[in-house]
Amino acid sequence: MDGAFEVLARDPASGARAGRLHTAHGVVETPAFMPVGTQASVKTLSSEELEELGASMILGNTYHLYLRPGAGRVAELGGLHRFMAWSGSILTDSGGFQVLSLTALRRVDEEGVTFRSHLDGSTHRLTPEGVVHLQELLGSDVAMVLDECPPYPSPPEEVEASLRRTERWAEIALASHRRDDQLLFGIVQGGMEAGVRRRAARALGKLEFDGYGIGGLSIGEPKETMYRMLEASVPELPPARPRYLMGVGSPDALVEGVARGIDLFDSVLPTRVARHGTVLTRRGPVTVRNARYASDERPLDPSCDCRVCRRYSRAYVRHLLNAGEILGLRLCSYHNLHVLLRLMEEVRAAIRQGTFAEVRRAAAALFPRRQEPAAGPRPAPTTEVTG
Amino acid sequence: MDGAFEVLARDPASGARAGRLHTAHGVVETPAFMPVGTQASVKTLSSEELEELGASMILGNTYHLYLRPGAGRVAELGGLHRFMAWSGSILTDSGGFQVLSLTALRRVDEEGVTFRSHLDGSTHRLTPEGVVHLQELLGSDVAMVLDECPPYPSPPEEVEASLRRTERWAEIALASHRRDDQLLFGIVQGGMEAGVRRRAARALGKLEFDGYGIGGLSIGEPKETMYRMLEASVPELPPARPRYLMGVGSPDALVEGVARGIDLFDSVLPTRVARHGTVLTRRGPVTVRNARYASDERPLDPSCDCRVCRRYSRAYVRHLLNAGEILGLRLCSYHNLHVLLRLMEEVRAAIRQGTFAEVRRAAAALFPRRQEPAAGPRPAPTTEVTG
Repeated sequence: MDGAFEVLARDPASGARAGRLHTAHGVVETPAFMPVGTQASVKTLSSEELEELGASMILGNTYHLYLRPGAGRVAELGGLHRFMAWSGSILTDSGGFQVLSLTALRRVDEEGVTFRSHLDGSTHRLTPEGVVHLQELLGSDVAMVLDECPPYPSPPEEVEASLRRTERWAEIALASHRRDDQLLFGIVQGGMEAGVRRRAARALGKLEFDGYGIGGLSIGEPKETMYRMLEASVPELPPARPRYLMGVGSPDALVEGVARGIDLFDSVLPTRVARHGTVLTRRGPVTVRNARYASDERPLDPSCDCRVCRRYSRAYVRHLLNAGEILGLRLCSYHNLHVLLRLMEEVRAAIRQGTFAEVRRAAAALFPRRQEPAAGPRPAPTTEVTG
Repeated sequence: MDGAFEVLARDPASGARAGRLHTAHGVVETPAFMPVGTQASVKTLSSEELEELGASMILGNTYHLYLRPGAGRVAELGGLHRFMAWSGSILTDSGGFQVLSLTALRRVDEEGVTFRSHLDGSTHRLTPEGVVHLQELLGSDVAMVLDECPPYPSPPEEVEASLRRTERWAEIALASHRRDDQLLFGIVQGGMEAGVRRRAARALGKLEFDGYGIGGLSIGEPKETMYRMLEASVPELPPARPRYLMGVGSPDALVEGVARGIDLFDSVLPTRVARHGTVLTRRGPVTVRNARYASDERPLDPSCDCRVCRRYSRAYVRHLLNAGEILGLRLCSYHNLHVLLRLMEEVRAAIRQGTFAEVRRAAAALFPRRQEPAAGPRPAPTTEVTG
């Protein structure tokens, strides 16, 4: 698809820009945060609720959907949109990250990766062309190439070898992509060296992708390192194409990513911290599960106007979480997504109105910095950690 | 409260009647099914959804809420309605059943019951007057007396001794009840002997309760036995007061209960079977979790117009359940409650229009008989089994 992305406004004092990504299922106003629906479900929430929250594009995960219910089955049922009754846009991650972080006995060779399913131990193989085909079956609006994300930290020679493979795979993916109602994004890797990242972005930027993911970040490195990697990569990418910082969703990193020219973000943060009883507020995260909130009649965030904050108290949500009631997870997840989606709405309006610097300053003060939840290799892969 | 209940119509060919129960939080059209929110939450559903489903009265459980978050805390937070942001009516069960089925080391004496909490093993004591006081703190619209439910089967002499205790406790409860914005219901026990049930109902009916629960049924006995017990008890109760068959929620038993003069029902059935991947339909229960539904594009019940059936397919719900996604439980629970609440709506309209016999015949054909899920003493008491 040509001309899928348009830049509408630029912040003069930073790399921030506001734009529109046109997909087969509508328009995504950028910068945008995409809720993660790993297994064709944004954890605990319904498609109605995602509409109500104003999400315009959500994620699905190719690795997970390939294993269950199967990409062929999703295709047979009319594609991912129809399957999950979601009429907005969908981006599917390639599954490269999940293969490397969730599976046992994986073996990466030059043509692809062989691994055992985290569900039943069965053996599978993903290749760059196979992953494109799977996403064509799923029918997402944006497909991602298969990449390899080296763990943090990794020795330079391993980062280099992995990067060469990722680059070769990107060319194969591009050559094998057929659906013209689906955008295909490449993924910039390159570890934590600015020089390597710069070179990787320049090389990938020469390939005719519809957009560019920046992967292999937010995997345990300090945030300053992540920002330096963005500063090295983004200027090397084609300015007319969207840039997607993968796996980032803490409020401060969203705003700082936007300031460095990022257009799209995704993260399991809002639903994952909800499972730990934490809610995002305009005064920083609040772990509402703590006993100190047992008699707190205030809403999760007194400055929030979401459906949850208009109706329920911290005391009730705390009780639900404490009693193991699913409604507690639902209410926290809904609220957290509302906070991030509203923040991005504000950011978009500010860029258009020339007031992004103020929003950036305010966000830094209102949302104290916090580390992303660890997204690196996980000790005990279960479905619980998938979204 | 006097005149809380009015009978509006009677079916000439059965004991069925349509009426209205006036509580401090509105009008409950009867016969009514009450969704169960054991721990101040109808499992997986929000108060908004219960409103949308048209529930007019829901249940809370005194035993569970006493242990967590504590009746005093609920009172401090403005009572159960405000705590859970539910403006409809609430009935609280006394907790007698839960003490006997969930706790270890319980000891029943003539003045009450001493038991260890299923949560932390701490020792507690409930008495008939204490249970009334707890429910006054919770602020429910209908409170239930503390009763003792003998297991099925039990020897006649044990049923008899237990019944005498329950009857004495009922008098104590009635004498200690203070709140005049709260109705108090007695509970008919009496095991599975028609003669004993008849005598128990006659004795209890002489006490000035606002309504009468019929307890100790649906605990493993054949349905025919349960119906005989209703036929023995109901005619002995004051006709101007509502009758509540406790713990019954299978579609066939609801209709047969109505035919025997029951006005109120509650059961965890709709949310519990949802957790096992089963949905109620107009053609009997469907275990949508089964592999045979993996490619089924039909709604859970093709004849249903609920929000879930209008949007989602069996294939998707099956995937969600199979993948451990909470949304699967939500969708099944919502649909199941819709089925029971709509059935009761039909039943009420039919009684008023003189067509109850037809609805009864149709229901017997449409909802094949099934056993209630076991409600008797449970092997491994965890929070999972509480609602």
